[in-house]
Amino acid sequence: MKNKNFNQLRSKSIRKIEKSAIAEILRVINQPGMISLAGGLPAPETFPTKIIEKLASLVIKKYDSLALQYGPTEGLPPLRLALVSFLKEKGIETSFENIGIVSGSQQLLDLVGRVFIDPGDYIAVEAPTYIGAVDAFSPYQPRFLEINTDEDGIIPSDLEKKIKQKKVKFLYLVSTFQNPTGRTMSEKRRKEVAEVIKKFNLLTIEDDPYGSLRYRGKSPLPLQVFAPKQTVYLSTFSKILSPGLRIGFYVASKDVFSLINIAKQTTDLHTNSFSQLIAAEYLTSGDFKSHLPKIIEVYKKRQTAMLDALEKYFPKNFSWTKPEGGMFIWVEGPKNFDSEKIYWQAVEEKVAYVPGQYFFVKKGQGKNTFRLNFTNVSEEKITEAIKRLAKVIKKNI
Amino acid sequence: MKNKNFNQLRSKSIRKIEKSAIAEILRVINQPGMISLAGGLPAPETFPTKIIEKLASLVIKKYDSLALQYGPTEGLPPLRLALVSFLKEKGIETSFENIGIVSGSQQLLDLVGRVFIDPGDYIAVEAPTYIGAVDAFSPYQPRFLEINTDEDGIIPSDLEKKIKQKKVKFLYLVSTFQNPTGRTMSEKRRKEVAEVIKKFNLLTIEDDPYGSLRYRGKSPLPLQVFAPKQTVYLSTFSKILSPGLRIGFYVASKDVFSLINIAKQTTDLHTNSFSQLIAAEYLTSGDFKSHLPKIIEVYKKRQTAMLDALEKYFPKNFSWTKPEGGMFIWVEGPKNFDSEKIYWQAVEEKVAYVPGQYFFVKKGQGKNTFRLNFTNVSEEKITEAIKRLAKVIKKNI
Repeated sequence: MKNKNFNQLRSKSIRKIEKSAIAEILRVINQPGMISLAGGLPAPETFPTKIIEKLASLVIKKYDSLALQYGPTEGLPPLRLALVSFLKEKGIETSFENIGIVSGSQQLLDLVGRVFIDPGDYIAVEAPTYIGAVDAFSPYQPRFLEINTDEDGIIPSDLEKKIKQKKVKFLYLVSTFQNPTGRTMSEKRRKEVAEVIKKFNLLTIEDDPYGSLRYRGKSPLPLQVFAPKQTVYLSTFSKILSPGLRIGFYVASKDVFSLINIAKQTTDLHTNSFSQLIAAEYLTSGDFKSHLPKIIEVYKKRQTAMLDALEKYFPKNFSWTKPEGGMFIWVEGPKNFDSEKIYWQAVEEKVAYVPGQYFFVKKGQGKNTFRLNFTNVSEEKITEAIKRLAKVIKKNI
Repeated sequence: MKNKNFNQLRSKSIRKIEKSAIAEILRVINQPGMISLAGGLPAPETFPTKIIEKLASLVIKKYDSLALQYGPTEGLPPLRLALVSFLKEKGIETSFENIGIVSGSQQLLDLVGRVFIDPGDYIAVEAPTYIGAVDAFSPYQPRFLEINTDEDGIIPSDLEKKIKQKKVKFLYLVSTFQNPTGRTMSEKRRKEVAEVIKKFNLLTIEDDPYGSLRYRGKSPLPLQVFAPKQTVYLSTFSKILSPGLRIGFYVASKDVFSLINIAKQTTDLHTNSFSQLIAAEYLTSGDFKSHLPKIIEVYKKRQTAMLDALEKYFPKNFSWTKPEGGMFIWVEGPKNFDSEKIYWQAVEEKVAYVPGQYFFVKKGQGKNTFRLNFTNVSEEKITEAIKRLAKVIKKNI
């Protein structure tokens, strides 16, 4: 039979993701003069450019063709070995065999979707949750169950209630400095959530891209520590080395690890060998230890500038999170405030952010909230942006 | 509900790919003393190690944070621009906007599957065909239609007959130095196949990983040239630079390009920026032009060694392809010969190959054929391997 056009041939899967409302919203962020607090990019000035140049050369000399040849799907041994120690310092006791390398943590989200989701299956996410994860799971056509959250993360009783009602394939959450709220699950809460996870043997994806970006306070142990059998721990080099290298990593129990690996094989064979070895040397050379404080120094000042400006310029009936690290602050206005409604006015004043409703899977929620990013804008611009935004808000309430 | 174990949660998709018969066969190839003609790896001694070290340093200096930051899903402009000229030399007239970068050509095969295949859809492939493509499409649960081939590639009348009978989502083929047969579609055949493609407006994936590895003769124009609207042309840096960098690229018409890009966004955001820029500089610096003849020199000698040894040692009732390039030779024995049956005897004699039946989608075909790779073994070892194999064959016929 003759095809009229190739768009007609689209799969159900691609139809699920082809419309992106948030892309429309974000189209304006590159306008001249715009100060965008909408993105989630690391600051390029924090990239260890010189270190990467040095390590690239070292990797070629040290590993020669291993850096350039096809490699094993699960990742190259030097990186997986280096991650054993890296993870141990975070409290995760695991072995080489359980650590896999992926092409950015986004890929693991896609692979988990592929391995576990059949159309119509339930998966549980935080309300609000990370949009990139929703995008990664959506092509597999799941139904999302939102779990209620408070200042300490997902609420164990709500999780238990909802997984009793529906057969949930897995739970996805960002445990530390969550995107979009900046919130961190307290260690007490992690233990409580782990109890539910273990009671129901619930597969859980703990996404932790921001954990190393801590500006004050003490890191709670990963959720993985309290439910190691059920939890796939996921992290990335994007925030501590370079996102352009696309190196993510995960820890999983043997059966889950093997399924992820089968799925990865058919999608991209394996992750970039050269960059894997650069990441390995970054950890083992001591460069990571010496460079991380420099990243933190930059971001900490920017976060302080944002928190100070919010305090100074924002109306008293607005509140916001005060995370001890990460990249985001979550602002909540009074009930009748609508962050989307004032978005285009803000854009006219040359300031952009992400309206909170985009982070909820069920529409109609979070209308009075929005997300601010502070990592990729200078302190001066942050202060100016918050001032502009406060002006727009005050005109509308 | 409580889950017993996570394997029970497996999707239909992953169940389609979890058993790999060929993996079982290939497990033995790393045994001590084994000469493996089973793989398809480039020779590490052909990697331009020094050039890559130099370009890595240059890329950091020239592009700075562009090489390390998140990038656009469709690929970085410097590489897409460099590919305009690269493709023009192959006869493909296209523009920047129609060239996309993927994480190895394997990723494009996966994305095409995701964009177009719903469970039960028909897709057409050559008989025999590239296994990696079958692996990439299988999670999307298509039905495969095999198109008959002869010395010149797929047979247009068979293609026409089969796409009249079934609604075929797309055709996949390797046009030059095919894997597994080494065969190249003649230019005349390309034109005939293009007529069918245009008549039925059949979306076609032309996979061309080996086209640059030509040891003699003249390259026919890509199939894409004769049906540009319908053809997605796909190639890779894996055979001309380094497979470990995982850089593939494709040319597609606007609507297909846009669908592929939407799908890629959710799977890995974008391809490694650093390696994209190394590939761009490899093309524009002149390093590609000066290095390619060195790769060809190595492979040409190895191919000659294999063809000579086959001539010298193999029984007269065996025939094989004599490709003008690429990585593979396809051997055909008499009708009653069974290449799988003698496989373990060959392994005992310390020589491995891939029995031909694995390259057919419908089982029971190609039992008297097998594939030999000549790129990753020295001439001496190739001669010795063919001698050993001939001995095993002669014992069995």
